[in-house]
Amino acid sequence: MRAVTVRDKQLSIEEHPDPEPGSGEVLIRVRGAGLNGADMLQRKGAYPAPPGSPQDIPGLELAGEVADLGPGATRFKEGDRVMAITGGGGQAELATVHERQLMPVPEGVDWPAAGGITEVFATAFDAVFTQAQLKQGERLLVHGAAGGVGTAAVQLGRAAGAHVTATVRNEAHRGAVADLGAAQAIDPEGFEEHGPFDVVLELVGGANMPGNLKALAMAGRVVVIGVGGSGPKAELNLLALMQKRGRISASTLRARPLEEKAITARLMEKHVLGHFASGELTVPIAETFPLDQAEAAYDRFAAGGKLGKIILLP
Amino acid sequence: MRAVTVRDKQLSIEEHPDPEPGSGEVLIRVRGAGLNGADMLQRKGAYPAPPGSPQDIPGLELAGEVADLGPGATRFKEGDRVMAITGGGGQAELATVHERQLMPVPEGVDWPAAGGITEVFATAFDAVFTQAQLKQGERLLVHGAAGGVGTAAVQLGRAAGAHVTATVRNEAHRGAVADLGAAQAIDPEGFEEHGPFDVVLELVGGANMPGNLKALAMAGRVVVIGVGGSGPKAELNLLALMQKRGRISASTLRARPLEEKAITARLMEKHVLGHFASGELTVPIAETFPLDQAEAAYDRFAAGGKLGKIILLP
Repeated sequence: MRAVTVRDKQLSIEEHPDPEPGSGEVLIRVRGAGLNGADMLQRKGAYPAPPGSPQDIPGLELAGEVADLGPGATRFKEGDRVMAITGGGGQAELATVHERQLMPVPEGVDWPAAGGITEVFATAFDAVFTQAQLKQGERLLVHGAAGGVGTAAVQLGRAAGAHVTATVRNEAHRGAVADLGAAQAIDPEGFEEHGPFDVVLELVGGANMPGNLKALAMAGRVVVIGVGGSGPKAELNLLALMQKRGRISASTLRARPLEEKAITARLMEKHVLGHFASGELTVPIAETFPLDQAEAAYDRFAAGGKLGKIILLP
Repeated sequence: MRAVTVRDKQLSIEEHPDPEPGSGEVLIRVRGAGLNGADMLQRKGAYPAPPGSPQDIPGLELAGEVADLGPGATRFKEGDRVMAITGGGGQAELATVHERQLMPVPEGVDWPAAGGITEVFATAFDAVFTQAQLKQGERLLVHGAAGGVGTAAVQLGRAAGAHVTATVRNEAHRGAVADLGAAQAIDPEGFEEHGPFDVVLELVGGANMPGNLKALAMAGRVVVIGVGGSGPKAELNLLALMQKRGRISASTLRARPLEEKAITARLMEKHVLGHFASGELTVPIAETFPLDQAEAAYDRFAAGGKLGKIILLP
């Protein structure tokens, strides 16, 4: 099979042996595979794949048809449309994933969209609901809301009955982000005047943290899952955090073990996927590329300023 | 009645009208009232009492006998030995507290100890268990472990089956802190070499935060409830926090409304007070003072370096 291959910080399309599904695993003929920020880091050599994942094939999410079943795999049958978050290896013609990490593709969702659902919606759901426990009637601020995770978080927040404010650097995208469900889509400059916010989703970086703390409501929660915009360094006034009785959490999904990825998949099935079948949730697609134009796809992602996902179609 | 009185940053003992218990409240003849860091701030004019508490009488905790019942108060009867956390007003001969904030004084606990239980044990329990969810078998680091909240946290951590490491600046107190249940009582310098820790209780200040993050275990939790030692400013590397999937929370108990103080009192009754009756938990007392020596008591507290509580005996 052919796959996007990253070795010595060089990206190419190379031939690899077809993977074989192990115990409990499913072989998937990949039809859509989204790009994510972690892929950009991996291309630079800064984010090695976790143990147990292909070390030289990037790709944290995929959708496709079940092509074969490993011993003991019983949740799906050949030909089923499935999708998953993985530790790596998604940007290839074939991939193996444990059946407990797989979800069915919701009815009416096409391959480009299915290939871009899992990583961003699972990441946004985990951050905003599992970690920050956003509740209906609360106010959610999403920084960097035009990106993949941002557009997912805006839609999930609205679907859960929260009031969503979105910061979007590119003025041209603010209308589209408002259409996804943000009550306000604003310039990042001066965002702290629009609070208080019960939950802040930080996708940009440390430079926002003093403003996040200033705009935080009593008992508010900040979740940090991306720092690619302004870097990781943050200044924090702990007394202000005490007085707000605030909480800051930070995480990545990628390095989590099988059992946690499986739990995330069950939460997605229960709380999120039904909203795709009804059309309440969508995956904005910025652009799709065939597998052999992966380098152009990566360059497009790295250039930023897009609305929604970049998807490879192997 | 006489009470410690703080007005225009001056501390004195003054005569006040006897308080009268309102609906659901209990009048208490105070027998012991502990000093806390918040009292030092209030004396400097930096920490006004929350609304509904006496503005000029400090004191966040007290123990004493029920002297009278307000309309509708039914949980206790005259003469019962009770104790409470309050928003202020504890350092007086009489005080009124809502009956839902009161707890019975455990059998065998004398007035000085009872006067120093509630604020520090409720604060430590809330921080280490309610916020950070310390579990048996986990590793707890307590910074500033020779103080009131610190000695409470060390004992509660040990009683819950955690492995406790304590930092104690004053070398002379390390043995006593180890005797309270710390497996290690160490110099704060270089503490980060003793990790990883699942939970860090920060009672000193922002200067410890880079070390706390370095010493944090995967999915570790830092709780900040005191910054009097090194101040509130902290530098935080968000990428490191993401990779650890860590969480930082911060809070104070004082400003919380009745319902939250009442919930805290119920949690204390359920999880903590039984350990006093059995002798597993104790309140180290550094020194007691009569009410009219409150100024000396405050100076003793502010001088630091003590082990355990300073208690006024009205």
